Amino acid sequence: MIKAPYVLFLGDAPDQLAAKVARGIRDWRADSCVGQIRMDGCAADVGLPDMSIDQARAAGAETLVIGVANRGGVISDAWRSILVSALESGLDIASGLHNLLRDDPELVAAAERMGQQLIDVRVPTETYPIGEGKRRSGNRLLTVGTDCSVGKMYATLALERDMRASGFNADFRATGQTGILITGSGVPLDAVIADFMAGSIETLTPDADAAHWDLIEGQGSLFHPSFSGVTLALIHGSAPDALVICHEPTRTHMRGLPHYELPSLKDVHDTSLAFARRVNPDCKVIGCAVNTSGLDGSQTADCLAACADALSLPAVDPMKDGCAALIESLR
Amino acid sequence: MIKAPYVLFLGDAPDQLAAKVARGIRDWRADSCVGQIRMDGCAADVGLPDMSIDQARAAGAETLVIGVANRGGVISDAWRSILVSALESGLDIASGLHNLLRDDPELVAAAERMGQQLIDVRVPTETYPIGEGKRRSGNRLLTVGTDCSVGKMYATLALERDMRASGFNADFRATGQTGILITGSGVPLDAVIADFMAGSIETLTPDADAAHWDLIEGQGSLFHPSFSGVTLALIHGSAPDALVICHEPTRTHMRGLPHYELPSLKDVHDTSLAFARRVNPDCKVIGCAVNTSGLDGSQTADCLAACADALSLPAVDPMKDGCAALIESLR
Repeated sequence: MIKAPYVLFLGDAPDQLAAKVARGIRDWRADSCVGQIRMDGCAADVGLPDMSIDQARAAGAETLVIGVANRGGVISDAWRSILVSALESGLDIASGLHNLLRDDPELVAAAERMGQQLIDVRVPTETYPIGEGKRRSGNRLLTVGTDCSVGKMYATLALERDMRASGFNADFRATGQTGILITGSGVPLDAVIADFMAGSIETLTPDADAAHWDLIEGQGSLFHPSFSGVTLALIHGSAPDALVICHEPTRTHMRGLPHYELPSLKDVHDTSLAFARRVNPDCKVIGCAVNTSGLDGSQTADCLAACADALSLPAVDPMKDGCAALIESLR
Repeated sequence: MIKAPYVLFLGDAPDQLAAKVARGIRDWRADSCVGQIRMDGCAADVGLPDMSIDQARAAGAETLVIGVANRGGVISDAWRSILVSALESGLDIASGLHNLLRDDPELVAAAERMGQQLIDVRVPTETYPIGEGKRRSGNRLLTVGTDCSVGKMYATLALERDMRASGFNADFRATGQTGILITGSGVPLDAVIADFMAGSIETLTPDADAAHWDLIEGQGSLFHPSFSGVTLALIHGSAPDALVICHEPTRTHMRGLPHYELPSLKDVHDTSLAFARRVNPDCKVIGCAVNTSGLDGSQTADCLAACADALSLPAVDPMKDGCAALIESLR
């Protein structure tokens, strides 16, 4: 568990996109954030109060979360001196960077000296069991996608927001680095050892109250050859009661693979559902969450109508319309 | 690479089954084995000459291969003294044990002192890339199964034996610990980090001559919820031109999961082929390899006829009939 509240470190981000982890945290856990720390020349801004480390501590921050991708995979000297100061002021540091905090001797020494934690959410912190393929008590919803990076995390978080507002007892379950930084815990599924993928998801979503919903962040796509195995493990480990299909309609090919076309919504529906029913025969696809951020108003309406028609199910953009139609389908 | 020839260490195996790794090596690479080392009370025998370590060295052995499962996951003192003697006599040690040789300080010290290698095939020795989903030159055959442990490795090795005898340029590609010990190299797929599973298989089966066949050892099953993700990554990473479906007809439920029925051969055929064609549109299922070791003569004939009928494809037991019918189908 990462201790809240956070202060978000935006570093020397060259543009807004470089700070998209901070943006995700601000979008979904603004009440866990006391402010942002920006270095000279930082071109990103997530709209939180700018603070020094001392001001962040005074405002109650417990953890500095690195909300920016670093250049060239290296923790620069300029970053390091700020991070060391953060540890010395009594902050933990949490990071989803590829290069790990724990591999930086200066940070490790400062953390040990101060008794603070360095939390690398990119790597698992526990040993997971082999999956057992058992249905558990309580309910599970999983997002599956036509591709990677189509908005599965945002759709799942929007479902949490709207289901809670509708009176559901529902919790987002993070399976990726940004999701873990947003919620403070989860399974970094892409970094789990192959044999334990399904078991890690069973651990993440254990038996629960009969009315409870785990809303599980999807990863990859069954149709993305680089990551399909991760997706299938997630479907089998989740034993989902409900699936939501996530889609990004402007994608012209699979992410990173120009030689691959996107699958049809129908193919994603049928294939995902067949695998889900292997572990949960009662599983249903309840609808489609479409990321229409690249479309204008009339294009959005046409696109949602086409998606709904292709699946004979509700299709919404959770960030424009909310999830009411999906929740209605779920009931 | 594990240096041949080997001497197989059977330790204090309580029965033949405990030495099945040694049995596999003897069955498929007898010409790489100079003998076996058995401790007092060993109840296993793979039919090789019994030797001391000194005799094995004199016979040319380069590597002692641990061909037995150890009890309780611990390297016992009795084992350790033999293994240290092996290192001191100039042998490397290769092992697929869960508890790693490299975690045993006494073995590590002896190996360093003598300049010998400790090879734990359970963990990857290299960093693999993310899969690219590209077809490569040359040809690839992959075995897929109705379940785990149905005989995929033996079927693939039998295909190598018989294809070579028929004039094919074909190489077995190991994806599991025993397969790696048999052939001296490969990818321990179940121990690879999730994100790199497909990429590890692309690395294992790179571009090759137009007439060459990689014969890739299958793992798990798309229908086994504990390991299905590994299987799908293997299908997508292999980009196979040909699939062989492996089956064990006496299995009453999925291995380790009494609450799961086996899938039908037809379901395995259709699902595996659809995924394989995502990366290789020309992929075909060429036949069925049935492990009939639990059946008598007339049962075997009936079973093979039923499997052939279910798939409208040749069905053979590669260990009883050889693979001629599969190779004919491949041509």
